[in-house]
Amino acid sequence: MSLKNPYTGFKIRMEKMLIQGELGEKSLFLACDQGFEHRSDFTITEAANPDYIMGIAEKAEIPLILHKGTYIRYADRHPDIPMVLKLNGKTELFYDNRAPQGGLDCSVEEAIGICPSLVAVGYSLYVGGQKETEQLTELAEIVRKARYFQIPVIVWAYVRQHNPRKKEEEGKWENVRYAARVAFENGADIVKLYYPENTEGLHKVKEYAPGIFCVIAGGAKADTVEIAYSTAYDIVHILDGMAIGRNIFQDPKPINKALGYKAIFEGKSVEEALDIYNKEKIEIL
Amino acid sequence: MSLKNPYTGFKIRMEKMLIQGELGEKSLFLACDQGFEHRSDFTITEAANPDYIMGIAEKAEIPLILHKGTYIRYADRHPDIPMVLKLNGKTELFYDNRAPQGGLDCSVEEAIGICPSLVAVGYSLYVGGQKETEQLTELAEIVRKARYFQIPVIVWAYVRQHNPRKKEEEGKWENVRYAARVAFENGADIVKLYYPENTEGLHKVKEYAPGIFCVIAGGAKADTVEIAYSTAYDIVHILDGMAIGRNIFQDPKPINKALGYKAIFEGKSVEEALDIYNKEKIEIL
Amino acid sequence: MSLKNPYTGFKIRMEKMLIQGELGEKSLFLACDQGFEHRSDFTITEAANPDYIMGIAEKAEIPLILHKGTYIRYADRHPDIPMVLKLNGKTELFYDNRAPQGGLDCSVEEAIGICPSLVAVGYSLYVGGQKETEQLTELAEIVRKARYFQIPVIVWAYVRQHNPRKKEEEGKWENVRYAARVAFENGADIVKLYYPENTEGLHKVKEYAPGIFCVIAGGAKADTVEIAYSTAYDIVHILDGMAIGRNIFQDPKPINKALGYKAIFEGKSVEEALDIYNKEKIEIL
Amino acid sequence: MSLKNPYTGFKIRMEKMLIQGELGEKSLFLACDQGFEHRSDFTITEAANPDYIMGIAEKAEIPLILHKGTYIRYADRHPDIPMVLKLNGKTELFYDNRAPQGGLDCSVEEAIGICPSLVAVGYSLYVGGQKETEQLTELAEIVRKARYFQIPVIVWAYVRQHNPRKKEEEGKWENVRYAARVAFENGADIVKLYYPENTEGLHKVKEYAPGIFCVIAGGAKADTVEIAYSTAYDIVHILDGMAIGRNIFQDPKPINKALGYKAIFEGKSVEEALDIYNKEKIEIL
Amino acid sequence: MSLKNPYTGFKIRMEKMLIQGELGEKSLFLACDQGFEHRSDFTITEAANPDYIMGIAEKAEIPLILHKGTYIRYADRHPDIPMVLKLNGKTELFYDNRAPQGGLDCSVEEAIGICPSLVAVGYSLYVGGQKETEQLTELAEIVRKARYFQIPVIVWAYVRQHNPRKKEEEGKWENVRYAARVAFENGADIVKLYYPENTEGLHKVKEYAPGIFCVIAGGAKADTVEIAYSTAYDIVHILDGMAIGRNIFQDPKPINKALGYKAIFEGKSVEEALDIYNKEKIEIL
Repeated sequence: MSLKNPYTGFKIRMEKMLIQGELGEKSLFLACDQGFEHRSDFTITEAANPDYIMGIAEKAEIPLILHKGTYIRYADRHPDIPMVLKLNGKTELFYDNRAPQGGLDCSVEEAIGICPSLVAVGYSLYVGGQKETEQLTELAEIVRKARYFQIPVIVWAYVRQHNPRKKEEEGKWENVRYAARVAFENGADIVKLYYPENTEGLHKVKEYAPGIFCVIAGGAKADTVEIAYSTAYDIVHILDGMAIGRNIFQDPKPINKALGYKAIFEGKSVEEALDIYNKEKIEIL
Repeated sequence: MSLKNPYTGFKIRMEKMLIQGELGEKSLFLACDQGFEHRSDFTITEAANPDYIMGIAEKAEIPLILHKGTYIRYADRHPDIPMVLKLNGKTELFYDNRAPQGGLDCSVEEAIGICPSLVAVGYSLYVGGQKETEQLTELAEIVRKARYFQIPVIVWAYVRQHNPRKKEEEGKWENVRYAARVAFENGADIVKLYYPENTEGLHKVKEYAPGIFCVIAGGAKADTVEIAYSTAYDIVHILDGMAIGRNIFQDPKPINKALGYKAIFEGKSVEEALDIYNKEKIEIL
Repeated sequence: MSLKNPYTGFKIRMEKMLIQGELGEKSLFLACDQGFEHRSDFTITEAANPDYIMGIAEKAEIPLILHKGTYIRYADRHPDIPMVLKLNGKTELFYDNRAPQGGLDCSVEEAIGICPSLVAVGYSLYVGGQKETEQLTELAEIVRKARYFQIPVIVWAYVRQHNPRKKEEEGKWENVRYAARVAFENGADIVKLYYPENTEGLHKVKEYAPGIFCVIAGGAKADTVEIAYSTAYDIVHILDGMAIGRNIFQDPKPINKALGYKAIFEGKSVEEALDIYNKEKIEIL
Repeated sequence: MSLKNPYTGFKIRMEKMLIQGELGEKSLFLACDQGFEHRSDFTITEAANPDYIMGIAEKAEIPLILHKGTYIRYADRHPDIPMVLKLNGKTELFYDNRAPQGGLDCSVEEAIGICPSLVAVGYSLYVGGQKETEQLTELAEIVRKARYFQIPVIVWAYVRQHNPRKKEEEGKWENVRYAARVAFENGADIVKLYYPENTEGLHKVKEYAPGIFCVIAGGAKADTVEIAYSTAYDIVHILDGMAIGRNIFQDPKPINKALGYKAIFEGKSVEEALDIYNKEKIEIL
Repeated sequence: MSLKNPYTGFKIRMEKMLIQGELGEKSLFLACDQGFEHRSDFTITEAANPDYIMGIAEKAEIPLILHKGTYIRYADRHPDIPMVLKLNGKTELFYDNRAPQGGLDCSVEEAIGICPSLVAVGYSLYVGGQKETEQLTELAEIVRKARYFQIPVIVWAYVRQHNPRKKEEEGKWENVRYAARVAFENGADIVKLYYPENTEGLHKVKEYAPGIFCVIAGGAKADTVEIAYSTAYDIVHILDGMAIGRNIFQDPKPINKALGYKAIFEGKSVEEALDIYNKEKIEIL
């Protein structure tokens, strides 16, 4: 009986995103923003099929991040995946011809209605961008609605401006940690960040934002599985988790890859994770 | 890809209430309205503990029907039970001193927020009661909201008036089937009814309401497990399912009992169900 | 090109309810309120099946009157029937234990969304009843919404009170015509009335309400088809149409019956209508 | 850092009502409904002065229960008392001439605005009363608003009807525990009950409602301090606390009395409590 | 009886846009945006007359795409055409002096009210344009309203920016398929695209967006009927349909032309389509 917390819905949804293990609570997300936010060609053609992506999340038992349109067409075949619906997004076409701000393509009310296994909503915040003011107000409205419906909010917090884009600023650890703190001070429950340069950067983020639940992007395709796992090992021994896209779903053995990550998040070594990866391929569909 | 139906949320929730088997789609619900709507003493004291009730639903994998207050205190220990939250209710104290109409103790918005595994909302409609007009209007509002959030609506449809209560009218098959049809014409997705006297009554309900998904109450405590299962056998070979309370949770082997019912709903014989029941007791907590 | 009337939606819907013929514009509706508003047993069991009712309207090409719940479950098999959704209703159980006023089970917005072939909405008004005040206000709200969406409004206007019911008052021609005028003065586009006693009564209604489009109930089951058609002949030579239920759908040859009525409404004689009726039975499903 | 619960406001307010000790979490409230809900003359005239009552709560450091009007006139002299504002109430004049339901004299929004030290709102629910339906709907609205503002809700749950009042039913343990469960199933955080006859009754309540936080009324003026403390001792060793009025504020040494109760709630013996009581009187103003 | 889908309105409207045949479900739309979005002179003067355009759609029995103003003036003569109302649009005057974004000239509520035979609403989305953010937010609002009213949404998805316009980018297959996917992820039910260069491009779109219902523009006036039909043949054997304007309504035998297309969409050969075309001209008005 929880006397001091009748907001059980929030707690349940939150726990569905957490991996319990020797390292405490960590999170591993499968992110699929190819198609809308990135149009990078899927090097594995099957990955263009939402059934394939949903099959990976389902079998690996990790939360999946999608936009609503993809979800509603395929979800009845995958009804139990813990889902994060992203509420805003933008394409990468003619990138600099507009300020960094995604269109708000889904509301919190809509998300909770269309998605019976919703565990969180997501929002991309461009810290320092020309629309920062409008975005912070928009985010606040989302956080309020989300609190009402007891849905956790994940903020993709990136330092960014357009025209000209200052790409060299975006990954600097001092900017990454600033973005983390800004999202946190605005009510985010989980913050998704760029990789802050290196292990030192991970420590700096932690130091500056001791109580923030930080999830790091999977980044560019790693050269080898071992490198990918080593990076993940460092991340989850300092910060709180990862949101990985291509490094899982474009891998020839995506479910094995994901299970290896999960092992690391539960406190296993890189070697143990590689053993899992090197087992026979787990089929998806 | 579902081109003609983007309302996937509704379909997913609906399917979580259905048992697929040789008889087609049937439903078995565990109903616990002892405590609020009935105060009948729990003959098994443990049954007063919501953890016990939730444990049964969880292990037997059947949807559970509760009011919100009970749900929010215990749900974090049972996060995956398919839940039906009842939106109105009334006590049985001084029964005839007011017209039959439950208080509206939970809204659709509230239900979907507090309950991450919500599959339906429930509403008690007293057909022919002094508040029938107000109730039909209230139900219509609930159905609209529920459609918006893609939540199925289960209507407890009972012929009833108070002061004086005409108990002899309530279970007559012509009244049971009238109540079924009224709920259906008002938009209910599933209708829960009194037992319409006998097998002939079950047929009459079906005839008058061919396309209605009818679930029958578990009724008074059956004398033996065999009688209970035989009754269930008749019901699901004519109509569509049952909502059972005491006949499951006050049984000394509640999970075994539930699994026996499920077997019948999947098309098995009463004997096969009894075999399941007679196996070693499955523990609850 | 209609310069003076941009409300084409209203005109189109209205015309879908009208039969053009030698008598001018007349209307014939198939009404099915057995099941909700009347629980009279269907003397032809098939009539309990909405598919059967919808099949009649579809093949006879006449508008059908239903409540929303029935419509949504069967409409995809009958997508083109001109539909009238009734917005309020009440059962006939324990009739006098509440004031005459149906529950508002559907809104105008809901009706236009769920029903792609909607041509009108319907409302039962109990003139002189204990809830007359509330009903007139409720009707006004419906008329306003319906005007906004360009949906015609049909009012079932009956003199009525409960407890005690004064049944002898309800069919008197002076009360029938009063009810017609009240509905008309409150914005109804079409008024559905009780049969005002006799031919003299039909004339009295016309006199008192020259510009009102009055549709008369089909009433009790007529003894013979000839009597039914003769009554209809009188009605449509004085007033504007009929809404017929049992006299069509409980007839052994329902589509033939409907086509006979239509012939009369187009200006044919009773004999010509009987010829149509006496042809080979047109099958429904 | 509370990752799984951002509703910290609720938790903080809840904890301000809890006494931590060897018995776990217990609650002691000072209730003053003399003046509005009871007009019993104050046997100690000073007790009619809100400053006196507030002084007791302030010095004894226990939450105080008042109606809003009293609060706003005196609160600036006692800004730190943990306050419970009662949202409804009724007088005891001409008691049976109306159904049992208090007027809703304060809203949740108003309470949080006028009272900077608000820790909860209170609502009297008359279970089984003629207005049960309306009250449950009203309570649900309050619970929703209170959850939004993160304010705990205390429900005074009494079995009651008027005209005729059935006083002999109200204190029966089976009715007391039924009232507790009903309040709980409707979302109450804390339930305030009549004393359920005797120690056996306390156990029965606990059994039937294992996870409910139950606070018992102080009841009629006890003959001696020892009897009062003994009763309290039994209560808090079985259930969760008390709301006491006259037995504190009409006592000649009200603060000493309260501190004695607190000692018992922290796990001390009746003797230890009496020692505290018997010390020199602590002055109030 | 559709137990799992009470959103029958959506299904009915969707099916009115689909041609069932050997190729599965395909769509052929008659699009008329000459007059508003294109001012290209009508080479056949009669085509400037909305009656002429509506007559083609009516007799060929294919859905028609118009803006509201044209619809309301002529619709009463053509009440049964399945209609798609375009909700936004812009002229081609001084094209580059403003960012690509149509004015929102009609709302979903307005469309459903004014158009009794409405089957879908349309929206032009300029992917990558300077107003992409605003457009995605605007589209989301339309999708939500359309879902509420059970109206399918067709998105015209074009890669586009102005000042300078990069015309060479707009028809590249990688941009066409990106536009398709973006519309899909934002909730579109049907997506209308530019022709993606060639047959290879059609395959690329399909691959990247396997579950998207893609309709291709009719494009520039084809040199011969045979070429037009051959192109259509390729399109509907890979993707899902076409929206054709000038290639139908500026043809000397527009209804014959449309029926030939329909034959191809049903799985017939180009030769069979040409036979239909070469029959005697079907008159329009």
